[in-house]
Amino acid sequence: MSEPRPSAAEPTPRVVVPAGTTAGAAVREAGLPGKGPDAIVVVRDVDGRLRDLSWTPDADAQVEPVAADTDDGRSVIRHSAAHVLAQAVQQQFPEAKLGIGPPVRDGFYYDFDVDKPFTPEDLQALEKRMKQIIKGAQRFSRRKVESVEAAKEELAAEPYKLELVDLKSDVDTDEVMEVGGGELTVYDNLDPRSGEQVWGDLCRGPHVPTTKHIPAFKLTRVAAAYWRGDEKNSQLQRIYGTAWESQEAQDTYLERLAEAERRDHRKLGAELDLFSFPEEIGSGLPVFHPKGGIIRRELENYSRRRHEESGYEFVNTPHITKEQLFLTSGHLPYYADTMFPPLKFDEENYYLKAMNCPMHHLIFRSRGRSYRELPLRLFEFGTVYRYEKSGVVHGLTRVRGLTMDDSHIYCTKEQMPAELRSLLRFVLDLLADYGLSDFYLELSTKGDTGKFIGSDEEWAEATETLRQAAVDSGLELVPDPGGAAYYGPKISVQAKDAIGRSWQMSTIQVDFNHPKRFELAYTASDGSRQMPVVLHRALFGSIERFFGVLTEHYAGAFPAWLAPVQVVGIPIADEHAPHLADVAEKLRAAGIRVDVDTSDDRMQKKIRNHTTQKVPFMLLAGGKDVEAGAVSFRFRDGSQINGVPVDEAVRTVVEWVGRRENESPSAELVKVEN
Amino acid sequence: MSEPRPSAAEPTPRVVVPAGTTAGAAVREAGLPGKGPDAIVVVRDVDGRLRDLSWTPDADAQVEPVAADTDDGRSVIRHSAAHVLAQAVQQQFPEAKLGIGPPVRDGFYYDFDVDKPFTPEDLQALEKRMKQIIKGAQRFSRRKVESVEAAKEELAAEPYKLELVDLKSDVDTDEVMEVGGGELTVYDNLDPRSGEQVWGDLCRGPHVPTTKHIPAFKLTRVAAAYWRGDEKNSQLQRIYGTAWESQEAQDTYLERLAEAERRDHRKLGAELDLFSFPEEIGSGLPVFHPKGGIIRRELENYSRRRHEESGYEFVNTPHITKEQLFLTSGHLPYYADTMFPPLKFDEENYYLKAMNCPMHHLIFRSRGRSYRELPLRLFEFGTVYRYEKSGVVHGLTRVRGLTMDDSHIYCTKEQMPAELRSLLRFVLDLLADYGLSDFYLELSTKGDTGKFIGSDEEWAEATETLRQAAVDSGLELVPDPGGAAYYGPKISVQAKDAIGRSWQMSTIQVDFNHPKRFELAYTASDGSRQMPVVLHRALFGSIERFFGVLTEHYAGAFPAWLAPVQVVGIPIADEHAPHLADVAEKLRAAGIRVDVDTSDDRMQKKIRNHTTQKVPFMLLAGGKDVEAGAVSFRFRDGSQINGVPVDEAVRTVVEWVGRRENESPSAELVKVEN
Repeated sequence: MSEPRPSAAEPTPRVVVPAGTTAGAAVREAGLPGKGPDAIVVVRDVDGRLRDLSWTPDADAQVEPVAADTDDGRSVIRHSAAHVLAQAVQQQFPEAKLGIGPPVRDGFYYDFDVDKPFTPEDLQALEKRMKQIIKGAQRFSRRKVESVEAAKEELAAEPYKLELVDLKSDVDTDEVMEVGGGELTVYDNLDPRSGEQVWGDLCRGPHVPTTKHIPAFKLTRVAAAYWRGDEKNSQLQRIYGTAWESQEAQDTYLERLAEAERRDHRKLGAELDLFSFPEEIGSGLPVFHPKGGIIRRELENYSRRRHEESGYEFVNTPHITKEQLFLTSGHLPYYADTMFPPLKFDEENYYLKAMNCPMHHLIFRSRGRSYRELPLRLFEFGTVYRYEKSGVVHGLTRVRGLTMDDSHIYCTKEQMPAELRSLLRFVLDLLADYGLSDFYLELSTKGDTGKFIGSDEEWAEATETLRQAAVDSGLELVPDPGGAAYYGPKISVQAKDAIGRSWQMSTIQVDFNHPKRFELAYTASDGSRQMPVVLHRALFGSIERFFGVLTEHYAGAFPAWLAPVQVVGIPIADEHAPHLADVAEKLRAAGIRVDVDTSDDRMQKKIRNHTTQKVPFMLLAGGKDVEAGAVSFRFRDGSQINGVPVDEAVRTVVEWVGRRENESPSAELVKVEN
Repeated sequence: MSEPRPSAAEPTPRVVVPAGTTAGAAVREAGLPGKGPDAIVVVRDVDGRLRDLSWTPDADAQVEPVAADTDDGRSVIRHSAAHVLAQAVQQQFPEAKLGIGPPVRDGFYYDFDVDKPFTPEDLQALEKRMKQIIKGAQRFSRRKVESVEAAKEELAAEPYKLELVDLKSDVDTDEVMEVGGGELTVYDNLDPRSGEQVWGDLCRGPHVPTTKHIPAFKLTRVAAAYWRGDEKNSQLQRIYGTAWESQEAQDTYLERLAEAERRDHRKLGAELDLFSFPEEIGSGLPVFHPKGGIIRRELENYSRRRHEESGYEFVNTPHITKEQLFLTSGHLPYYADTMFPPLKFDEENYYLKAMNCPMHHLIFRSRGRSYRELPLRLFEFGTVYRYEKSGVVHGLTRVRGLTMDDSHIYCTKEQMPAELRSLLRFVLDLLADYGLSDFYLELSTKGDTGKFIGSDEEWAEATETLRQAAVDSGLELVPDPGGAAYYGPKISVQAKDAIGRSWQMSTIQVDFNHPKRFELAYTASDGSRQMPVVLHRALFGSIERFFGVLTEHYAGAFPAWLAPVQVVGIPIADEHAPHLADVAEKLRAAGIRVDVDTSDDRMQKKIRNHTTQKVPFMLLAGGKDVEAGAVSFRFRDGSQINGVPVDEAVRTVVEWVGRRENESPSAELVKVEN
């Protein structure tokens, strides 16, 4: 997943800061905003370094003003908010020692050495203190410390900072922002009236001019963290927070966060009994429960049908293979880090397959091939195993065992352009059938490193063919230089979900290399022996990941055609159950997955349960319905259609499912004739 | 696979051999047959030891006459044939040194140290010599050698035999029949007239009385073999042969052998382009080509549909797991030999799963279960990996990676009898739908070794419940004492194929043990916490094996509903192809897999090709057909139905496939209204 991509930024006007004046004065002179979300918070000098507004160059300097509502602007605001947090903590817990406090994606944190973990009440009190500090409009003031000794004297009470002073030449400055390259600086917080130092921190900066320039912030959670990430060091308490250029931006972010949490497929997977991640099996190795099994099968079945109709042929290959196969393909030793360690038996190394391609190539070359058979499209739902670090394993979207909807298309060079065009169209159409319809493309091309094999001409030709197919699709095309696989360039389809997040889905790769390594050949119409091109293609990417994305896209309310239970009958009283059992029988005969809830719960409770379980169609029946041979529709949104004749109700459900409607059914959308 | 089981043998009458007379005389005295397939060839003494008919006991001895047409009788005939072979070889190749020459299943072999391998012509010549020796009615005469030294002197020219003399106390007497337990004996072949020793061999015996008692034999093939099976030893030439109690029995056997070879699924798999076993991947790891992929999918789809209709719920689980899971289940360390070695990462041992049950148990216990949910039937097409020794790996019927149609049924103890009965019925019905209908059952029960866990009461109850279900099925029930899994007894379904061979297919096992090990529980109707029973069940056994068995059962001529290509259109001339393309389009729209052969081959060649490829329906069209809007049916057996109107032809095919007819279609079976 990635955040919504920033739209191409407006070019920011450059400003000249005359020698001896502050950058802030020059910005004001230029009439740029000093307040609001687009207020200028820092400037970027010609070397690309961010500078405080109080920076005063020795000679005239051209700078680029950086506004609060940009990525860099937000980072500065968040870094300043981290300082405010640290000041508040040391006010409230004078014994707290400071670790580091950098901005991070969407927020910031600060680590503290304290006697006991912070409580939620502590966070509330700290937020209150921070608000006071912000209101106090303390000025962030940069001060160079003359020597390491001076810095150590000043920081005598902060053991972790002392360590940082010693480390200054080799710390990872991306992570540890307190220490600059070569020079030691402290940022003092000064009282706006008295000018006195209220608080200070070893820090590279830059910062917003005053604490008042932190328009919105919130502390979000506490976690334990080892000093410098090493579990042999002391355990510190890390407070996470977020900060934004405006209250509105922060509210939007927090709402998006809450929405993403509500949609978290791991949470929904448990609530809807779809899948789990048993600790007994291992990290990144999900099991699919019966309800998840139904969704998975429906995902696969529809894909399979569409692929069959489009001329794909289905194969099956094993999950382990001799090492030599991956040496032949070139995946080994290159991908060894992402493959599981080998199994040794029969005096050979065997590997769990991390990709299906070499096995498909063996099927291609298992007999002679004629040009009449091309394009030959081999397809497999092939489960592969990849060694993801346990830290990056995440639910279904980053797993160690994944089932690729993997296809390898063998075609002539001449067939390639048309095949790529129709392939991209097929991919986008199929994704749309599952309810994803907002796409852009990425074109990953060759980089400068030695990993890329094959001639420049081949790369250029393959890249241009892919680019043309992408352009023909009419979708936005974003370049990704250096992002190609070692054997050829690729297009990846990025799909936006219901809450605007982009997910990489399908990939299409051109490969001139494997045909050589596997000596693939076909007999051309003139009888000559020719080498085919291979196109690698996965549409879902992996079923697991696609399942996870769809779960979040639909917030668990799967389209009726995918829903594990499509219809549930809810009798108003026990005596209405047999009527619903008859209806259920009719639905079942038409292939609908239907239950009748005959539990001891009361009707209202049943409606709540099945709404929570996101069953698309609830059919209620009371005395009037039984008498009239009818049922009442109840939908997840609470809307209802009463007194629908049974046959009409059955037909309505069957047609809705048969059309594979992706909308959530409701009284408004479901048309019945009653 | 196993041979047709011998029907329960008639009890052989016992005979008393008076002291000082030969067993043969006593047998003759008793009026037992001396000629023909049921002739007596040896006797079994009270210790179970087989004795020559020339054996003369010191005291009165009760013996059991052994007829030629029994397993033991055939073994003796084959052992004697091996001696005749060795004599013939040393006549023809005087320098040949003797290895060993035991009877084996369905025949015998003898190993020889010779300068160059035997040719087919050599075998012909040797058969001729053997016939002469047999005709010569040489007498097999047993002689005890007084000492090791005497034996060595006698066998000075046979280095391998000398080795056997030294080894006599520790050779595996099952395999090496030349040397008896403790005493050294030689069998001399004596000329019937002169009584002179014509040939002799160090041998434990027993043998038929004379070479004339070898009614039928044939040499079948030559293979290289290392002395005593060790590749560090010299390479010998092994001649294989078979021998039988009558020419008729041998002809039947050879015909069955030839038929089995014609049906060999490995051969058909290559000819029909269904699957292969790439050396690059490894032994026992098949890949399914597109045509095999279709059959496999049809096998699975129909099974899945039937299981869904019968209340099974489908799950998916990974192929690797932490070691602890198999320790919990008790499979490790017990089954470690048949599992692949562990993968070590993240400081843990992981195993490729060799069985799915522990993972299904985790799904069962992933949340609380109510009695209302039982029986809960979890099903998975789960691919497991088992380390079969490379010597026993065989085509699809013995593989290292196999996809079980694996089900675990969780039920109450009270539900178990009814569940087992309906389960067995379901299994037999479903096998019948695939065309297997001749069954018997095996009941595998607890043995004496320590491997069986659980109380005697539990075993007795589970065994009795299984027995009752088996008896209720009305099928023949064969006991298999000691053949149970460690956790409980099982029924296995043995199915006979089209040529009478029995294959173990489905297994049903009762398990009281895993529920304890996994602490499985459900809430009973009275609110108490109870432990369910687990039934383990695989119907195909494995898809790979079932695929192999069906390929041989149908000799590759799969029923139309399973056939990869169901219909092929064959135009009489090129101009008739568009007409067939229209017909194909109609068939395709109705879900039929259809090709039109527009290759350059002539019509007769096309018919031959597609008959060889076992396409069930060939549709021919010439000028008359085009004019009349008709086609002509051509079947694999050569029969034909001409001038069938297109719509009628389409309907005929669609209905035939839809009915899942397992018969091979022919003019006789396919009814059309034209």
